[in-house]
Amino acid sequence: MVEISRTKWSTDFSKWFRDVISQAEVYDYRYPVKGVGVWPPYGMKIRNNVITLMKRLLDESGHEEVLFPMLIPEDLLRKEAEHIAKFEEEVFWVTHGGKRPLERRLALRPTSETAIMAMFKLWIKDHTDLPLKVYQIVNVFRYETKATHPMIRVREVTTFKEAHTAHATFEDAERQVKEAVEIYKRFFDELCIPYMISLRPEWDKFAGAVYSIAFDTLLPDGRALQIGTVHHLGQNFAKAFEVTYLKPDGTHEYVYTTSYGISERVIAALIAIHGDDHGLVLPPHVAPIQIVIVPIPYKGVEKEVYKTCEEVYKELLKHGFRVVYDKREDITPGEKYYYWELKGVPIRIEIGPRNLKENTATISRRDTLDRKDIPLDRLIYELKKLMDDIKQSLYDRAWKWLRSRVGIVEDIEQAKDIVTKRQGVAVVPWCGSESCGLEIEERTEGRVLGVPLDEKYDVKGRRCIICGREAKHMIRVCKTY
Amino acid sequence: MVEISRTKWSTDFSKWFRDVISQAEVYDYRYPVKGVGVWPPYGMKIRNNVITLMKRLLDESGHEEVLFPMLIPEDLLRKEAEHIAKFEEEVFWVTHGGKRPLERRLALRPTSETAIMAMFKLWIKDHTDLPLKVYQIVNVFRYETKATHPMIRVREVTTFKEAHTAHATFEDAERQVKEAVEIYKRFFDELCIPYMISLRPEWDKFAGAVYSIAFDTLLPDGRALQIGTVHHLGQNFAKAFEVTYLKPDGTHEYVYTTSYGISERVIAALIAIHGDDHGLVLPPHVAPIQIVIVPIPYKGVEKEVYKTCEEVYKELLKHGFRVVYDKREDITPGEKYYYWELKGVPIRIEIGPRNLKENTATISRRDTLDRKDIPLDRLIYELKKLMDDIKQSLYDRAWKWLRSRVGIVEDIEQAKDIVTKRQGVAVVPWCGSESCGLEIEERTEGRVLGVPLDEKYDVKGRRCIICGREAKHMIRVCKTY
Repeated sequence: MVEISRTKWSTDFSKWFRDVISQAEVYDYRYPVKGVGVWPPYGMKIRNNVITLMKRLLDESGHEEVLFPMLIPEDLLRKEAEHIAKFEEEVFWVTHGGKRPLERRLALRPTSETAIMAMFKLWIKDHTDLPLKVYQIVNVFRYETKATHPMIRVREVTTFKEAHTAHATFEDAERQVKEAVEIYKRFFDELCIPYMISLRPEWDKFAGAVYSIAFDTLLPDGRALQIGTVHHLGQNFAKAFEVTYLKPDGTHEYVYTTSYGISERVIAALIAIHGDDHGLVLPPHVAPIQIVIVPIPYKGVEKEVYKTCEEVYKELLKHGFRVVYDKREDITPGEKYYYWELKGVPIRIEIGPRNLKENTATISRRDTLDRKDIPLDRLIYELKKLMDDIKQSLYDRAWKWLRSRVGIVEDIEQAKDIVTKRQGVAVVPWCGSESCGLEIEERTEGRVLGVPLDEKYDVKGRRCIICGREAKHMIRVCKTY
Repeated sequence: MVEISRTKWSTDFSKWFRDVISQAEVYDYRYPVKGVGVWPPYGMKIRNNVITLMKRLLDESGHEEVLFPMLIPEDLLRKEAEHIAKFEEEVFWVTHGGKRPLERRLALRPTSETAIMAMFKLWIKDHTDLPLKVYQIVNVFRYETKATHPMIRVREVTTFKEAHTAHATFEDAERQVKEAVEIYKRFFDELCIPYMISLRPEWDKFAGAVYSIAFDTLLPDGRALQIGTVHHLGQNFAKAFEVTYLKPDGTHEYVYTTSYGISERVIAALIAIHGDDHGLVLPPHVAPIQIVIVPIPYKGVEKEVYKTCEEVYKELLKHGFRVVYDKREDITPGEKYYYWELKGVPIRIEIGPRNLKENTATISRRDTLDRKDIPLDRLIYELKKLMDDIKQSLYDRAWKWLRSRVGIVEDIEQAKDIVTKRQGVAVVPWCGSESCGLEIEERTEGRVLGVPLDEKYDVKGRRCIICGREAKHMIRVCKTY
């Protein structure tokens, strides 16, 4: 454990984030390879709870889990021209087996479209094989040359959920894109993570896509973090890999494919957005520990206090709560509060002499740090209600915060001011041309997230913030990770 | 799908195995890299059920799940001399990131002792940090130069459960080894996979271990398959990585470590051992689909048949069975039987006109192919009982078969006969010397599995099958994968 030093969430986010993931034992980035990290037990439990949620949403919507190889031969990766052009600089290459050079180089998958298409070619024969919807949760690799950042910009993405689908028509693939967007909305809503959904500009779409839709959230330092992407791949990969299907009329056609992904960045966002100066704040349904019981054993009543705590503990277990009864005798209740607050446990129950007299428990919620006494016979009911309240409250607070950071402006200096000084997102009118888009980026020192798909901004009568021509869209711009 | 051609389980096991894993869609080895394969949805579900079982056993016994990086820098891998000496020829090396050569080569983990020890050094300070018991389920890589075999001898092991523990004393590590053996026994028992537990001979222990214990099972072709290993690593890795702890007396000592692993070979064994000429036979508790309902819709009673099937289907779902109602109208009931038998679904329910009249369902069990009629009002009870019966029956049959293949012999020619012609395991007296051990291997054309730990053979008065000196142990020898 590194020493506890609670830097401020709001004033030095980057340091806060690094400290809190170490101290709360979520992610350990001291492994001796740049840009890769270890998930210790507590972080692993958060990760598994988030994965379980994701899997449920995908399974319920007819996706099937699969597992593809990690190694992609160079010739396969090169089949789709745009794809390799983008990834070429970022791929780790395996060149030797033992002491021998390999006959052909093998890439550590940066993403799996090419591996998947090689098998889709074998799996898809007929229109009745479509749509085909699969996903896997795997590690992927990017040789990042920029500064790495734990969980956010890494060389081994340990937790990449990538879905891949194939369809008979462009329209059906588009319907799938919409389904994916809806699934991701539900996923982020469950995690109380607010988001902006944007159509990425042409110059920033996925390598090989017809178009890309992205989910971005905003971290406390005002930089957007891409937390999910959905790509319509058209027939681009199908043509490169010759994946066709037999139509009912006896002719063959290339399939249309989509892909959509989410990585452990969502867990980084979960931590970054809900946390505070005391440490993690976890939504109850993904918290590894939902409730901690801390006895306050004043002299003379220790036995009764422990007995009541034990009874409450058993009762909570019986009701399915993930609960810890912290019986440690070598540290004070205050130290326990500090420890469990750092870990982000949503609810703390204290039981001391006064509680015994009054037949109550004192309940403290992690998100607001509010405390109140609850009659023991209403405890289960109140805890269930409180879990819902905490979730709703985290959701509301996070969305309110994000919305407060977004400003519509029609002047490039004001846009730059929002992006560079006010740690926000500027929404500006844009003519739709790439040159103006790139100039927006240059002059605001930000990056264009794209055209909002989740908000209807009235563009009528507005003029492009760069060229002054009639605006076609409003567009989001801000600092990004 | 490849064309169905049911080769014989008992007469051409190798072909049977390749055919059945393809046709039942368990594992697809057509991916264009030698020795790696894809888990399609059905196989993935079997895999996930097996993993769930393993995780439960580990979680219940105080192990915590973690996730370590896939890349191990060369200097780390080289720290334990015996370890790298063994793995050097088998390691895949990453040498380039994008177009640039890396400063130091990175190995694709062949196993994670070295990565784990690098972090244990940071995590372990004090005797109160011990024992430390973690596990992960990850992909590992071996550059196999021998012929690869789907799921059995692969270059990417996709499903390696590796546990790593650290302890204050040699004895506590040994206690952990025993715990691991017990956990593995329960795991294989649950999967109805029979096993031989052997102390591997010195010349075949894990690279860096003090000793290695292995679980082997026997496949239908009489070759042993190693399905689990448990290693006492002593202080070998702790010394190489300088992992020490503070003792209560204020001095520092190196920790003692163990490691134990199981891979997807266990799923290969599950398929190989229980299967038959009709395809897979899955134990009910790990079968993705436990029950399939096939309507027999004779003319005139179709509606009633479908209605009853639907009712039964809903009832089974309500009781938590994993059930499929096969309503397909373009294939015959016979074709459905064939299809679901191939997939290894443990129980089939047929409902036709006669059943309607008699208020029964016809139940067919996959393992014996026996059929009988059950009154509908006893269906749930009978199905639960049948699931238990099938599991017990698979267990008994598999163990009986394994035991029938093991013979004690004191003559080297007889031993060779068992190993080479009777597809069995010879148990022979041995003086304990490496030279005699290696000669046993040479003269029987088999490999020594080691000294039995699960059977007490009386060695008194027996003489080494090679040198004629007093035997110290009985030792197992057979063909292996």
